Amino acid sequence: MNPEQFSPEHFGWHFADGVATVTLNRPERKNPLTFESYAELRDTFRALAYAPAVKAVIVTGAGGNFSSGGDVHEIIGPLTEMAMPELLAFTRMTGDLVKAMRACPQPIVAAIDGICVGAGAIMAMASDMRIATPTARTAFLFTRVGLAGCDMGACAILPRIVGQGRASELLYTGRMMTAEEGERWGFHNRLVDSETLEEEALTLARSLACGPTFAHGITKTQLNTEWSVSVETAIEMEAQAQAICMATNDFRRAFEAFAAKRTPEFAGD
Amino acid sequence: MNPEQFSPEHFGWHFADGVATVTLNRPERKNPLTFESYAELRDTFRALAYAPAVKAVIVTGAGGNFSSGGDVHEIIGPLTEMAMPELLAFTRMTGDLVKAMRACPQPIVAAIDGICVGAGAIMAMASDMRIATPTARTAFLFTRVGLAGCDMGACAILPRIVGQGRASELLYTGRMMTAEEGERWGFHNRLVDSETLEEEALTLARSLACGPTFAHGITKTQLNTEWSVSVETAIEMEAQAQAICMATNDFRRAFEAFAAKRTPEFAGD
Amino acid sequence: MNPEQFSPEHFGWHFADGVATVTLNRPERKNPLTFESYAELRDTFRALAYAPAVKAVIVTGAGGNFSSGGDVHEIIGPLTEMAMPELLAFTRMTGDLVKAMRACPQPIVAAIDGICVGAGAIMAMASDMRIATPTARTAFLFTRVGLAGCDMGACAILPRIVGQGRASELLYTGRMMTAEEGERWGFHNRLVDSETLEEEALTLARSLACGPTFAHGITKTQLNTEWSVSVETAIEMEAQAQAICMATNDFRRAFEAFAAKRTPEFAGD
Repeated sequence: MNPEQFSPEHFGWHFADGVATVTLNRPERKNPLTFESYAELRDTFRALAYAPAVKAVIVTGAGGNFSSGGDVHEIIGPLTEMAMPELLAFTRMTGDLVKAMRACPQPIVAAIDGICVGAGAIMAMASDMRIATPTARTAFLFTRVGLAGCDMGACAILPRIVGQGRASELLYTGRMMTAEEGERWGFHNRLVDSETLEEEALTLARSLACGPTFAHGITKTQLNTEWSVSVETAIEMEAQAQAICMATNDFRRAFEAFAAKRTPEFAGD
Repeated sequence: MNPEQFSPEHFGWHFADGVATVTLNRPERKNPLTFESYAELRDTFRALAYAPAVKAVIVTGAGGNFSSGGDVHEIIGPLTEMAMPELLAFTRMTGDLVKAMRACPQPIVAAIDGICVGAGAIMAMASDMRIATPTARTAFLFTRVGLAGCDMGACAILPRIVGQGRASELLYTGRMMTAEEGERWGFHNRLVDSETLEEEALTLARSLACGPTFAHGITKTQLNTEWSVSVETAIEMEAQAQAICMATNDFRRAFEAFAAKRTPEFAGD
Repeated sequence: MNPEQFSPEHFGWHFADGVATVTLNRPERKNPLTFESYAELRDTFRALAYAPAVKAVIVTGAGGNFSSGGDVHEIIGPLTEMAMPELLAFTRMTGDLVKAMRACPQPIVAAIDGICVGAGAIMAMASDMRIATPTARTAFLFTRVGLAGCDMGACAILPRIVGQGRASELLYTGRMMTAEEGERWGFHNRLVDSETLEEEALTLARSLACGPTFAHGITKTQLNTEWSVSVETAIEMEAQAQAICMATNDFRRAFEAFAAKRTPEFAGD
């Protein structure tokens, strides 16, 4: 992938200063996902693993909403006609999008305004950090269409973000989580005004992109892989992972800058 | 089990509209548990796995308190006289109650007023959601009787609800958690007045009972089984679990209702 | 180790009433860690496993700060010159400190004032409970020196304390967490004034030291070992662990005291 020339069919793409912005952009329908956009998003996040020029990613929506999730007519209707092998192929494809978002080395910042539901809520959840506006409304509403709350990793990931009790309520009832609740519960890292949302997300993403990006990728790997191991194993994993980072030029640069009372400049190597 | 005719000896039972209410009911002693009530509760929650007419469960206490936990004279006294095989048989029986509460497919709503301590706090913790009153007082007070905080799964389950630091304090010190703390920390999903507690719990349970109950059972299974697996494994588990739900009639009914701009009616199949 | 006579070279040590206080004490530099102090702290926490007279531990800092972490000149400089085997030996040594803090049976209370950053933040995180002052400022600032957030177990432990979203922000950005955020997010158990910090930490530690300390050690073991097992396995582990505690004299003492309407006196056996 060449991020300068990448031109996806099913979502917006902007790349500058090491930051790629993915914009779900069918605003007239609140940015729903379709079979095609799922697949292209999955392929894009997979390609980011081999796109070292991209240092951080923003996921957002056009027109004042994040995403209305899987489209009722374009996705749910066809699914009700499918045989099991096709159904499993679909759920694996959507799960692969979350796997790809977690597996790419770039930290992902979700910038969330307005409606953020269904697969949209999942994409927000699968991001590393979330900045939202006071009017953001998030719902894992799978139960509303007769499905289980276990969609694309939600029963594993959401409890680790907001706790088991709150996640249970959100997943069983499909109810809206207000922006204020989201901030209080640790889903949203911060609430900002709609007018400043894009700027705030860019400021955060740029500051990550200016940091030790190789090390950020290791942080992300460890945040993902240490979930299901013992404390002792996690500590040994980090001893090895951090020793790798201590052999980078960015670590040396930071020391030299501190010794010289300069601000360090990182290069991601 | 026939929920219409079930008549337990050691707690109250009410069944209507798909909702079974379990009421700990020795209010003159704040609803303590005994060897017999533990065993009957365990057997009841085990039987719920084969009681498809029951769609949701409420656990509550009579007379303004939830439960005072294991009775000092009826349980703690006899335990101090037992040999190890009997002790282990007891701790396994109490643990089996929590296993049965987590394993039954019905979502469990705890409705908590007043005292909620010891094994009572554990039953609240083992529920899926908790509605409490402002005077609910919850304590994991095992340490007060010379025991460890690791009772019936508390060292695994409580940290996932309120976080490791808060769980550590509650389990080491046995101190009371106020209702306000419980809500702020994510233990209680909501606080409501004593007079409306029963009604609020019923409203929530009934709304779950009217939902896609087969899918709710899958949500519960996944909330339980994805704790100790990797993110990648969890996502594959959910791809399979959700594909099962997409093959249900409830999913088709939901689509047809949305297409016809009707509210879907679910049947749990 | 004889806690009465122990006299460490690189930090302060005070022992009274069953409570050992470890004080990081190079206040003129905000209590940084060095190769030597890391090693001595590791050895001390390891020795605590065989020091039954010590019932609880306080970790704190001298002069109004907790710790400034690994010293730039004494640690970071030398690390930039090391070959990989030496780097891994260092990261394993620091990880071994956290392992030793989690493995000793005594509950650890961190008393945190002022600066609490880098390895200092890790020592706070590795404690069982944290009491802080309103001016405590905590940062996992590894990213600021070009390293990853995965230091000494942070990517596994911090998300379990404050949730995955907040931990991600703290570890990617290295930003300061205010005392108010720390309390709200469940990192700090409580905020108290600077003047009363020592007294509050002592009161908590002494109350733990007067409790069923054998059982406290089992609570700690279970809080550590149940992270990465299934709910069912955790419940069986607790059935066994609690049966052990029911065979202690402290459990019998508690029952006898309750039956006689006395306050129980525990002896840790």
